[in-house]
Amino acid sequence: MSLLVVGSVALDSIETPSAARENILGGSAVFGSFAASFFAPVQLVGVVGEDWPVEHTRLLERRGIDMSGLEVSKGGKTFRWSGKYMRNMNDRETLETQLNVLGDFQPKLPETFRRAQFVLLGNGSTVTQHMVIDQLAGADLVVADTMNLWINIERESLDRLLKRIDGLVLNDEEAKMLTDELNVVTAGRRILDMGPKFVVIKKGEHGAMFLSGYDAFLFPAYPTEGVVDPTGAGDCFAGGMMGYLASVGRIEPETIKTAIAYGTLVASFCVEGFSLDRLSAITKADLDRRLGELRQMASF
Amino acid sequence: MSLLVVGSVALDSIETPSAARENILGGSAVFGSFAASFFAPVQLVGVVGEDWPVEHTRLLERRGIDMSGLEVSKGGKTFRWSGKYMRNMNDRETLETQLNVLGDFQPKLPETFRRAQFVLLGNGSTVTQHMVIDQLAGADLVVADTMNLWINIERESLDRLLKRIDGLVLNDEEAKMLTDELNVVTAGRRILDMGPKFVVIKKGEHGAMFLSGYDAFLFPAYPTEGVVDPTGAGDCFAGGMMGYLASVGRIEPETIKTAIAYGTLVASFCVEGFSLDRLSAITKADLDRRLGELRQMASF
Repeated sequence: MSLLVVGSVALDSIETPSAARENILGGSAVFGSFAASFFAPVQLVGVVGEDWPVEHTRLLERRGIDMSGLEVSKGGKTFRWSGKYMRNMNDRETLETQLNVLGDFQPKLPETFRRAQFVLLGNGSTVTQHMVIDQLAGADLVVADTMNLWINIERESLDRLLKRIDGLVLNDEEAKMLTDELNVVTAGRRILDMGPKFVVIKKGEHGAMFLSGYDAFLFPAYPTEGVVDPTGAGDCFAGGMMGYLASVGRIEPETIKTAIAYGTLVASFCVEGFSLDRLSAITKADLDRRLGELRQMASF
Repeated sequence: MSLLVVGSVALDSIETPSAARENILGGSAVFGSFAASFFAPVQLVGVVGEDWPVEHTRLLERRGIDMSGLEVSKGGKTFRWSGKYMRNMNDRETLETQLNVLGDFQPKLPETFRRAQFVLLGNGSTVTQHMVIDQLAGADLVVADTMNLWINIERESLDRLLKRIDGLVLNDEEAKMLTDELNVVTAGRRILDMGPKFVVIKKGEHGAMFLSGYDAFLFPAYPTEGVVDPTGAGDCFAGGMMGYLASVGRIEPETIKTAIAYGTLVASFCVEGFSLDRLSAITKADLDRRLGELRQMASF
C-alpha cells in the first residue's frame, strides 16, 4: 500500500552550539515522506511559494515520492522556521516563524490521493488536518501528529479531530498537557478516552510508548551519541512508523511493534545530520542493521 | 551465593502531595537488602542508635537477612532523613538530614562477611564504601551505588573508588554531572574510562541503561501509574539487580539483562507504597508475573 502524507513543507534556518544552516529543506510533510519512503510509495500534499527551489522537489521525487500534490502558490513565499538548539540539544528556542503560504493552506487532494488507505496527518494546524479527513474516501488508518502549539491554540478543533482519527502521535510533555495528568501512562489512557484507538507517545532519547485499549508496548531509543540537529526527528518517527505499516498493509500488534521500532531508527539517523543529509546517505539495509542492534540491546 | 549489602539504615519522614508518614523504615542498606532478599540470602552491615525499633530488625530477619552486622551505637540516635515530593512525584526537596550515628560510621564486617563474593556498596559516603572494600578478601563482584551529593562533596574519594569497583550505579543526571557530558551514552562511556568494568544508568520512569566495554543494554521501566512514594526506588533497583546476580553466581550478558530487569521491577513495586509496605506484601511470583508482562510489552 502507499502512504499519503500531508503537512508542512518548509525552509528551516537552524543554529546548534557547533554549526548553523540557512534555508534548508524541512517541514513535517518532507521529513515524514522521506522517512516513509524507505518502506512504501508515498504521496505528499503540501504548499510552497515561488521561492521554492525545484531541486528539493527533484530530491523527493527521486525517492519515489509522488509530488503531484505539492501546490506552488503564485506570488507566495514558502513557510520558514528558524530555531536555536541549546547545549543539551533537547531544549530549543524558536527564533522566527514566517507562516507565509502555509498560513491559509487549504489542502486539495488529487482525485487518486482521496482513496488513500494509510494517511499521516503530519504535524500542523488541526484545521488543515480536518480538511484532509473531509476529502478522504474511507481510509483504513488515519494517524495525526500534533504538538504543544496546537494543544494551546486550537484545543476545541483538536478535541474534534481526536474523534475522527485512529491514532495520535505526540510527545510525553504534550500528552500530560493535553490531559492535565502528571503520569505519562495515565495521560495516555486519558487520551484513548478522548477518541483515538491508539496513542503513540514519543519520549525523545528515552524512546516511545504505544497504548491502545488492549496493548501497551515500550520502546527504547537507539543510543545515539552524534546528535547534529534534532529537527524533524518526531516527523521521521511518525513517517517511518506509518511507512512500514502501509508497506505491510495490516495493523496487528507485531506489525505495530516493528513499525514503531523502525520509526525510532529513522529518527536516530535523522538527528545525525542537518535536514535530510544523513537520511539521504543511508539505505533500508542501514535501518535493518540498527534494528538488529536495537533488538540485541533491548531483549532481556 | 549470598549478597553483602552495606549502606545507610534510616528513619524517614516523608511528605507527598496526598499523604505523609513519620519515622518509617528506610535507608539504602534496608531497601537494597530487602530487594535482594527476593533472590538470595543477604548479609546487612549498617549502624543505628538506641532509638532503633527492634521490630524493624525482626522484619528484616524474617526475610532471611543476616542482621548480625547491624551495629547499635550506644547513646546514639539513628540517621534521619525527611523530604517532600512535588506534584510530579519526581522532584523532591530534602527538609532535614540528621546524620546522627551515620556521621562517623566505620563499618566493621563480621569475619564471615569478609569472604563475601557479591557486594553492594549502597548509596552513602564513599569513605564508608572504601572502608568496606579494605576489609574484603577478594570479592567476585563489587558494585557501588552513588548520587549527586557524593559527586559534589567527595569527588577525589569517588574517583579513587571508581578504580576499586567492578560496577557503578547512578542516575542519568548524575552520570552527566560526573563526566561533564551532556549526552548520557557519552557520559556512560566516559565513566568506563574512569575505572569500573560496567556502569548502570538509572533513568527513573524511563528505565535503565547498562554499558560495558563490550555491551550496551537498554531497559524500559514498568509503566506504573500508582506511585505512592518514590523513596528507595534506586536502592531497590540496585538491590534487586545484585540479589539476582548473587543467586545465579555468574556474571554473563544474559544474566545481567535479567538482573537489571528484576531491579526495575522491584523498584516498580517499591514506589507503590511507603517504606517497605508494598514490597512486604508481594512474593517472587509477583515479580515473575511483571517480568513476563514487561517482556511482552518490550519485545519487538
